[in-house]
Amino acid sequence: MIRPHTASPLYPIANPGSIAVFGASNNPSSMGTSLLDSILELGFPGEIYPVHPREKEVQGLKAYSRVLDLPFVPDLALIVLPTDVVAETLEQCGQRGIKHAVIISGGFKEVGAAGQEKEKRLQDIAKRHGIRFLGPNCIGLAHPRYKLNTTFMAFEGIPGFIGMASQSGSFVTQMFSYLCRFSLGFSVAFSLGNEADLDLVDCLSYLGACPETKVIALYIEGIRRGREFVEAARAIVPHKPIVACYIGGTEAGRRAGFSHTGALSGPENLYEGIFRQSGIVRAETISELFDFCWLLGTGPPAAGNRVVIQTHSGGPGAEAADACGRCGLELPPLSPETSERLRPLIPPTGSLKNPVDLTFNKNFMDYFSEIPRALLEDEGADCLLAYLFTPSLRLKRMLRQAGVPAEDVAAEAEKIALLQADTLTGVIKGQGKPFVGYTYRGLEDGLIRRLIASGIPVYPAPRRAARAIGAARQYARLRDRILKGG
Amino acid sequence: MIRPHTASPLYPIANPGSIAVFGASNNPSSMGTSLLDSILELGFPGEIYPVHPREKEVQGLKAYSRVLDLPFVPDLALIVLPTDVVAETLEQCGQRGIKHAVIISGGFKEVGAAGQEKEKRLQDIAKRHGIRFLGPNCIGLAHPRYKLNTTFMAFEGIPGFIGMASQSGSFVTQMFSYLCRFSLGFSVAFSLGNEADLDLVDCLSYLGACPETKVIALYIEGIRRGREFVEAARAIVPHKPIVACYIGGTEAGRRAGFSHTGALSGPENLYEGIFRQSGIVRAETISELFDFCWLLGTGPPAAGNRVVIQTHSGGPGAEAADACGRCGLELPPLSPETSERLRPLIPPTGSLKNPVDLTFNKNFMDYFSEIPRALLEDEGADCLLAYLFTPSLRLKRMLRQAGVPAEDVAAEAEKIALLQADTLTGVIKGQGKPFVGYTYRGLEDGLIRRLIASGIPVYPAPRRAARAIGAARQYARLRDRILKGG
Repeated sequence: MIRPHTASPLYPIANPGSIAVFGASNNPSSMGTSLLDSILELGFPGEIYPVHPREKEVQGLKAYSRVLDLPFVPDLALIVLPTDVVAETLEQCGQRGIKHAVIISGGFKEVGAAGQEKEKRLQDIAKRHGIRFLGPNCIGLAHPRYKLNTTFMAFEGIPGFIGMASQSGSFVTQMFSYLCRFSLGFSVAFSLGNEADLDLVDCLSYLGACPETKVIALYIEGIRRGREFVEAARAIVPHKPIVACYIGGTEAGRRAGFSHTGALSGPENLYEGIFRQSGIVRAETISELFDFCWLLGTGPPAAGNRVVIQTHSGGPGAEAADACGRCGLELPPLSPETSERLRPLIPPTGSLKNPVDLTFNKNFMDYFSEIPRALLEDEGADCLLAYLFTPSLRLKRMLRQAGVPAEDVAAEAEKIALLQADTLTGVIKGQGKPFVGYTYRGLEDGLIRRLIASGIPVYPAPRRAARAIGAARQYARLRDRILKGG
Repeated sequence: MIRPHTASPLYPIANPGSIAVFGASNNPSSMGTSLLDSILELGFPGEIYPVHPREKEVQGLKAYSRVLDLPFVPDLALIVLPTDVVAETLEQCGQRGIKHAVIISGGFKEVGAAGQEKEKRLQDIAKRHGIRFLGPNCIGLAHPRYKLNTTFMAFEGIPGFIGMASQSGSFVTQMFSYLCRFSLGFSVAFSLGNEADLDLVDCLSYLGACPETKVIALYIEGIRRGREFVEAARAIVPHKPIVACYIGGTEAGRRAGFSHTGALSGPENLYEGIFRQSGIVRAETISELFDFCWLLGTGPPAAGNRVVIQTHSGGPGAEAADACGRCGLELPPLSPETSERLRPLIPPTGSLKNPVDLTFNKNFMDYFSEIPRALLEDEGADCLLAYLFTPSLRLKRMLRQAGVPAEDVAAEAEKIALLQADTLTGVIKGQGKPFVGYTYRGLEDGLIRRLIASGIPVYPAPRRAARAIGAARQYARLRDRILKGG
């Protein structure tokens, strides 16, 4: 049912060996120049042919005055030209035998009736020449592992496992740095634009088959091919989770979406039904979209709803418990065996209920080793949710008082934070259960940064962590229903 | 109706001239020592008298072996001793004439029947000697402007305008660095502990009268004196907003809260009613608690529900519009005058609907000057919600291409970001309407950091911004109802 991604028309678009760029010049303020800069900066390994009517050289590359002059047929045409010359350029691309294009230029369907006609012309030309294209009115795509970034924004970050198809280009480019802060990244991210040819369903299918993608993120303002969308999703969900953020459920969101891409969104409950039928987990916001992808792409799946909370502070434990309750997660009591294992490790002020509130632990390192190990091994627990608070100033104070020379304190504190993180990561990786952290510290904090870099999700608030666990459980239920033919 | 805060028993506790510390020693791993470290590190200007049975000197300060040996009667006793010697110590404090105490030690009501009896004894002793105290089982208080931090955590950050009363000590100490990231801080923050004497109502009343506090944040697991709570709140709300995060509405939250402070929480709808009657804005999470305080403590109030959204990206604009819709906010069309003012400033690809989507602006700086000024001056707008995305890498790229020497690019880019921020701040401060920013960039980003430092709230997601605007509107409605006697 799933075609290999190499057979998709999106494959040469995301993995071109050579690109012709239309619209780049030596004028630094032009959009096309920015786009070529992005490609060059990321170190695209293939051939690049700028096409420019007058320039002999563009950004240090030999430029060609006409498509027909190109020495080879490039795999991909990137078009960032004024609206009125796009059709003509696409026609010439067709004549030269180019079969794939990304049309960044706007001024088509999204501006009304006149634009609609222009868009129809693009479709006709493409059809005639067998060209498949993304756009118009999109910002292109990013395939960081392949060192391809066709957007006008500089790439920041690392390749990752999130495959994105977005009806907003911003949610591709403006997430580069956002994802990077969580040690996350895109496998491939497509900006869909007006979807005059290749659309949401095509991108979804590509990402479903693409092995670099472990979880699919969709930003949707409106679905055009409903039936095909559901079919494609249902073929993917049994082996790969899909998360969607749909804006348009409110009147205000609907109006904003329409003036943005001309998408016709539908009533909230219609979309809710489509997502349920498709087996797609729905995120309420963009932050949630990536929160959910984080856990779905990193953790082993939880076998059930039962969460154990580990904390050393009552308030953050209570907040997490409340958040779990609101997400339909259960907080089972610890087994007698686990309680016995933990009792020697925690002080009399601590609580062996769930949340397990250690108040403090007798041995500093137990919080990152014996305690989470015992909790993950509890047969009644499907998932461990742990509060991570590393008061680095307090740690530094203790080191100073323990006689560590002032100039070594910062380095020693960092060393301890990394040891804590690596110890905890070792414990987690040895178990088959998901571990989810939460904190109110900044993500740049030593412990948190290291955990995140090791692929352990640590959310900046317990509600976000609980919602992600809830989403992972929802995915498991949706997948099982599809596998049973429901 | 509101007594001056100087008349409150909490005044000498938050502003002591001298403190006797019980439990600090020269053992760096003891809790009492940590607490004394915190006091010393922040530079408390008053006298500090460590009381220790054996040490002659504690952390470089002259120590006294008995309370009765103290040369003066200190304003405050800080007690961090093993449970079983607390009563005896409090008794001696009473004999020496000390009238105020903070009892950090745990092992009282929160551990069950035996502890309950011990707590009763503390109450009896305090009553007999006329001692007023916070705790037991609390972490004390922070009054950073007065350079007082009686918690065992090192203080990080700056004094601010948020007055906090918390039934979790963690939400005092563990928010130091959290708030700091938003350029926020506590005026005074009280950890309530078991509330054996001074309680939530006392702290609320103090914060209501304290002029350093512009907005009050409450973390509540259970309210003991319901009627007095409502009365105190209703006296405060007409001149100062109160925001509360109540955990306990779910069964899981309730159980966690009980084992934490022994508080008896009630059903969700009971508390919802108490908050409504009190005129208190309710936050769903701790993050929201401070999100709401941020806008309530900085912005001029909005006159109504009508929000104009300024963006240069369709997706983030649509997400904000959707979030506003979900919070009951309206997105009015721009007035014809505003549209006329903006038309020359934005490209034909832009939209003058609401969200105002500039796609890009012709003049780089207009986004921070003429455009927000025109939108804030629109008579139909009560509040401006603006997307702030500053692609510093792109800016640097443009500077390089404009011929700025490589070694100056970073400094020039930073300079531009600060100029943008200061220009925008100038525009905002000249208007009487609230401005709220949102971004997906990190808060350490030059533009964002500077805006935040200037007291402009910039939320890390549109939903959080919209919910804060909704909360500010809710406050206005609640206050008006109380002022009308409803």
